[in-house]
Amino acid sequence: MLSFKEIQEKIEREIGQLEFDCPPKSLYEPITYILSLGGKRIRPALVLMAYNLYREDVEKVIRPAIGLEVFHNFTLLHDDLMDQADKRRNKPTVHKVWNANTAILSGDAMLIAAYQLIGETAPEHLKEVLDLFTRTALEICGGQQYDMEFESRMDVSEEEYLEMIRLKTAVLLACSLKTGAILGGASREDAENLYRFGINIGLAFQLQDDLLDVYGDTRTFGKNIGGDILCNKKTFLLINALRRAEGEQKAQLEHWIARKDFDAAEKIAAVTNIYNVLGLKELSEAKMQTYYAEGMKNLAALSVSEERLAVLKEVTSRLMFRQS
Amino acid sequence: MLSFKEIQEKIEREIGQLEFDCPPKSLYEPITYILSLGGKRIRPALVLMAYNLYREDVEKVIRPAIGLEVFHNFTLLHDDLMDQADKRRNKPTVHKVWNANTAILSGDAMLIAAYQLIGETAPEHLKEVLDLFTRTALEICGGQQYDMEFESRMDVSEEEYLEMIRLKTAVLLACSLKTGAILGGASREDAENLYRFGINIGLAFQLQDDLLDVYGDTRTFGKNIGGDILCNKKTFLLINALRRAEGEQKAQLEHWIARKDFDAAEKIAAVTNIYNVLGLKELSEAKMQTYYAEGMKNLAALSVSEERLAVLKEVTSRLMFRQS
Repeated sequence: MLSFKEIQEKIEREIGQLEFDCPPKSLYEPITYILSLGGKRIRPALVLMAYNLYREDVEKVIRPAIGLEVFHNFTLLHDDLMDQADKRRNKPTVHKVWNANTAILSGDAMLIAAYQLIGETAPEHLKEVLDLFTRTALEICGGQQYDMEFESRMDVSEEEYLEMIRLKTAVLLACSLKTGAILGGASREDAENLYRFGINIGLAFQLQDDLLDVYGDTRTFGKNIGGDILCNKKTFLLINALRRAEGEQKAQLEHWIARKDFDAAEKIAAVTNIYNVLGLKELSEAKMQTYYAEGMKNLAALSVSEERLAVLKEVTSRLMFRQS
Repeated sequence: MLSFKEIQEKIEREIGQLEFDCPPKSLYEPITYILSLGGKRIRPALVLMAYNLYREDVEKVIRPAIGLEVFHNFTLLHDDLMDQADKRRNKPTVHKVWNANTAILSGDAMLIAAYQLIGETAPEHLKEVLDLFTRTALEICGGQQYDMEFESRMDVSEEEYLEMIRLKTAVLLACSLKTGAILGGASREDAENLYRFGINIGLAFQLQDDLLDVYGDTRTFGKNIGGDILCNKKTFLLINALRRAEGEQKAQLEHWIARKDFDAAEKIAAVTNIYNVLGLKELSEAKMQTYYAEGMKNLAALSVSEERLAVLKEVTSRLMFRQS
């Protein structure tokens, strides 16, 4: 069995060797660029870890695994353009280094390149893996659509928010795990439990992300603290604040949301204070823990030895309790 | 054997019944919109016609065939955004009816939906059809990339132009024909000849398109005459004019290309006059005829009776000698 570090190294090496041989080269420079910005490579790692629960020869599935990472980076590329984001992992985004048209077209090529890699799945599993990936990819587009629609809505419910992050974030983690399970020859039941585990930890991770944006450590968190507050992003925190605040507090919150001209630090401090008074950090952490615990139950239901599960459990808990 | 009209009707019915069941609905409205704008449905028709050379049960391949039409419309959707085009088939483009972000995201979903339909290919042919489609889709992105790069270049050669239109236009027609052949159980040789036929007629059609933009009948041509001239589009005509014009004529051509403020009718008349004097209409028609004749040779090399080829030949010649 491989450690997470060994798996990450294999993936990094494979990504570094990716070649796009269809001209012109200029179409692929932005793809190589965004893939070089790094990241934890969680999605392909989940494919390999799930596969590794059942089989040893992880090299066999590395190409479709990388396909999921290429797909994930495609979504970042197009999302950054749609969100007009200037930075990604502290480097300028593709539409900033090049331009909007390049971001659109190279993004499209990247989505196709993801399918090319996933198309390298062993023929006996191709149909199932392809169908799972395609459904997942459509769900992710749906998640992004909801996310954009929420920007102009003030009445987003907690349920709607959770469905949005399920689609935008959780389904790709679940798809990665299930893909590894299918390729590893897992039983249908195990594959489903790994899928459910992915959904639960995906939801927990996103709630954690929302929390870190407000309560994270500035020194280690990749983005600036309070970014979500500044742009009124409908997070679990803001949605619950809007629902629970009353009287003067509610007026204050609505005032900060409506205000166009403001001092950034002042707005972050004021809104964080409302979150604190309403106990939303604790509420959010409790919700997160619930999903995490559900995920652990899904793992426990697998027909796999405790020992085999060690790597997957360790990685999950490390991501769960990260400070950045 | 089915007539072109019968094939078109089957395709139109299937497109009308397309359902996208992954929420939210708002993601799919632009997809339904662009697909409703019509068109000749050439690509799926080529799949069915090629399949029909070998087998009768064309319904069996209609879903992957429609996938190629969905893909083609995806390229139109994103190209219109990149080109800032206001109209498509005399209706406002998706980014005009909605906005740029919707065009990006619904376009992405459309590319994935194309893969979903192509994924319905019979399992025994899935790998081959998928690989062919993916390579073709990357080539088309490459063609669009070249097309955009040519905008800022004055030294595009005839060879570069032909390679660009091969990638941007011809390979999808070739892919459609070869897909039909593969699904119909054609020999490898027949499938290759149908592919080559597609490349040749694709190049001929694009040269015809360039000609119609200048010499077409205003009453029947879908776009305004002279559009390519107004935006200095590097067509077969302009590239050859730049290469062949000399002295005062060359100065005149460069003057019109450089000029920012001009009367549209005056520019069209002046540039068309240069094309006429240089005999570029005849040059272009000759080139077109060469590709058409090559395409006919590819058809003649098929292991299929003359009678079976009638529909494909009739459609090709009708498209070849169209006035709009």
